[in-house]
Amino acid sequence: MPINDTAGVPSCDGALLTDLYELTMLQAYFERGMNGLAVFELFVRTLPPQRNFLVAAGLEQAIEYLTALRLRDDERDWLHRSGRFTPAFIESLADLHFSGDVLAMSEGTVCFPNEPLLQIAAPLREAQLVESRLLNLIHYQTLVASKAARCVQAAANKPVIDFGLRRAHGAEAALLSARASYLAGFAGTATVPANAWFGIPLFGTMAHSFIQVHDDELDAFEAFARAQANNTLLVDTYDTEAAARKVVALAHRLRIDGIEIRAVRIDSGDLGEHARRVRAILDAGGLRQTQIFASGNLDEYRLEALQRQGTPIDGYGVGTHVGTSADAPYLDCVYKLQEYAGRARRKRSEHKATWPGRKQVYRYVDGSGHLLHDVLTLATDQQDGMALLTPVITAGQRIRPPVPLDQARVYCKTQIEALPAALRAMNGTRPYAVTIAEPLRALTREVDRSTTRATTPDR
Amino acid sequence: MPINDTAGVPSCDGALLTDLYELTMLQAYFERGMNGLAVFELFVRTLPPQRNFLVAAGLEQAIEYLTALRLRDDERDWLHRSGRFTPAFIESLADLHFSGDVLAMSEGTVCFPNEPLLQIAAPLREAQLVESRLLNLIHYQTLVASKAARCVQAAANKPVIDFGLRRAHGAEAALLSARASYLAGFAGTATVPANAWFGIPLFGTMAHSFIQVHDDELDAFEAFARAQANNTLLVDTYDTEAAARKVVALAHRLRIDGIEIRAVRIDSGDLGEHARRVRAILDAGGLRQTQIFASGNLDEYRLEALQRQGTPIDGYGVGTHVGTSADAPYLDCVYKLQEYAGRARRKRSEHKATWPGRKQVYRYVDGSGHLLHDVLTLATDQQDGMALLTPVITAGQRIRPPVPLDQARVYCKTQIEALPAALRAMNGTRPYAVTIAEPLRALTREVDRSTTRATTPDR
Repeated sequence: MPINDTAGVPSCDGALLTDLYELTMLQAYFERGMNGLAVFELFVRTLPPQRNFLVAAGLEQAIEYLTALRLRDDERDWLHRSGRFTPAFIESLADLHFSGDVLAMSEGTVCFPNEPLLQIAAPLREAQLVESRLLNLIHYQTLVASKAARCVQAAANKPVIDFGLRRAHGAEAALLSARASYLAGFAGTATVPANAWFGIPLFGTMAHSFIQVHDDELDAFEAFARAQANNTLLVDTYDTEAAARKVVALAHRLRIDGIEIRAVRIDSGDLGEHARRVRAILDAGGLRQTQIFASGNLDEYRLEALQRQGTPIDGYGVGTHVGTSADAPYLDCVYKLQEYAGRARRKRSEHKATWPGRKQVYRYVDGSGHLLHDVLTLATDQQDGMALLTPVITAGQRIRPPVPLDQARVYCKTQIEALPAALRAMNGTRPYAVTIAEPLRALTREVDRSTTRATTPDR
Repeated sequence: MPINDTAGVPSCDGALLTDLYELTMLQAYFERGMNGLAVFELFVRTLPPQRNFLVAAGLEQAIEYLTALRLRDDERDWLHRSGRFTPAFIESLADLHFSGDVLAMSEGTVCFPNEPLLQIAAPLREAQLVESRLLNLIHYQTLVASKAARCVQAAANKPVIDFGLRRAHGAEAALLSARASYLAGFAGTATVPANAWFGIPLFGTMAHSFIQVHDDELDAFEAFARAQANNTLLVDTYDTEAAARKVVALAHRLRIDGIEIRAVRIDSGDLGEHARRVRAILDAGGLRQTQIFASGNLDEYRLEALQRQGTPIDGYGVGTHVGTSADAPYLDCVYKLQEYAGRARRKRSEHKATWPGRKQVYRYVDGSGHLLHDVLTLATDQQDGMALLTPVITAGQRIRPPVPLDQARVYCKTQIEALPAALRAMNGTRPYAVTIAEPLRALTREVDRSTTRATTPDR
């Protein structure tokens, strides 16, 4: 890792993509010869007020990260240069790789607070080092998928497209947001490399600048329609209804050449009011097939309002609000030690206490597959519900090929359809029941007793 | 760009890191032979209610992006495979590079709505294509720097450290957030590659897991203190005050071996109350030099409250709230056409109208350098204030080496010190005066007249 001082965008990979304290702790573990089996779980502690459920996402990126984990030569050199670590410790990292087991919730699974999305069982140094990036990957995609699922609900059956690149927090966010929102039911994205990397369908219209570089709006419409068979004309640059009338005139002229105006886009003002007027103009002009697409500061609340009013909008572009999860831009997502060297562990910090031990989540559904409740219990407490955590990495090896994104998307759809209707609504509701099973409660009491013993001598 | 289907994290560069509509428009421009000189400006339309000023950031990454712009072979192949573009258009992109001029505000400059942060004058296809990524880069760093500057103010003279990697929106966000927050006055970051790439000072403590893997808290403290000369012990895993008493006992024992306890960290509960009690315990135990470091869901509002109460905290770790700019996770940041082929242009969409033409921002200060007001005017209207937009790229070439980040950081500090006190406060205030000069108003009227003419024939 060269020191670039200020320029450029850093590469976003490597074993050192972590917090300094992970390395500092690894040095201390090394000096004490501590590298026993550690079990960590990644979960969300509480839901933001505006969420009734979460959609697990980011697992494929997490698996790739773990299975590719190696210390590069330039990273080893940086460790030496930093002056913070002993040569013996740095040399001990030469064979670093992830050799542990991972259980996880499938991407697209609907999930709730305290339920592990990921469970890592690995030698301490590996399990500790990967904390920061695992959280970074799973947190963000889960955040976006959970928000996007709400937009899909709010838009009823109308397609929603991700327009988030420009205001996503960096390029990685834009690409992973395109992925997570597609997983959660978006119809596609405008972000080009999201097609190249993830195979996500691309959609695009035109910008106001296209209208503006032409001296005449009608001329701009015609140029675009002739260049793009699959065209959407942006009608709000100057006067939305006047532009719609131009579209009608143009459409009649272009029909002679076999060119159709597929859609118009409205991006400002009262979208519902403009859509109704534009629809009337298009219909009166014989353009019943021409669709209306809307964008501009949209989120699930505005989508729901537009749908409730029966607005004649055929599709939505949603950018900033999903890519930044604007009304809840983070989740209280953590990665906590549950067991070390065969003993269950628990953090008891105020308002941040965790359930100890290696866990499993069982889901109970009714005869038609609708969710009834979940049970959080110890991995050893086998129950007859559906176990949500299943193996994805064993002894450092991926044990199944990546799940195709379209397949995960279909699974996510069935998951959301299985939710109680109240949880799918935009407003808050009675939380979904996640029961803490008695064996887990018993272990918690036991751990508290032993920790209290271990920490009392000083008092 | 291979289609990976679902796995891995995409690379975050290339000419196709853009929205589909940029490419679609380029195809239409190509077919019409339109590639005149286009002037675009990047600016923020309005401030979020919780912000009184912005801090311009991200310019160095923008310059790197523009000067490196090329179409890779795999990107060209993707364009062919996509079936959306004509072979002639794709071949025309073979020599794509940025050949234009860029004026910009220096990083660290305090700025306000409607003031261009960046002005691009380039052949249309280049100026259009770069819209999405330029916004993506400048928006996010400006967002974070503006939030971080508030935290620095709120913390008075106490150091603030970026802890944001785990909940930043992806790795690029984490790294650019470390950079933007350091630019705005943070003392450093915990994100390791931010040191390697940007030279930002690193800080780190320990995680709760370090305490938990040891059977005894005191034993964990001792192991860490012996392994790390520059140690900070986390005291809130079980019982904060009990842990502080253990630190005192340990410190006396370690002093024999020449080891000091540099600091303790409190991460939960009522930070002010715990800090006062821990300070008393440390002082009574003779550890007046041992500092108290606090973290846990902190933002500028909590920092200000803690400082106002005179809490004995010596430094703060701030993560999620700055990395996601949680109370305002996006800015209304846009990139708008101002001039094409020598004629000024303007968008008149409802609530989204822009001031046309190629502009300059002049800043007026008093005798001691304090900001009085800014004037937004045409580039041709030379004034005697300080011009904030200066050339950074001419004819596609960078005309100065990158500004060292530490130098930009010092400049930013003087910028913020020059702000009226009311603007530096956490709460909203009367907006800073940005006057629209008469020549700009006159041009706007003229553009409206000519656009109305151009668009009226249909009405």
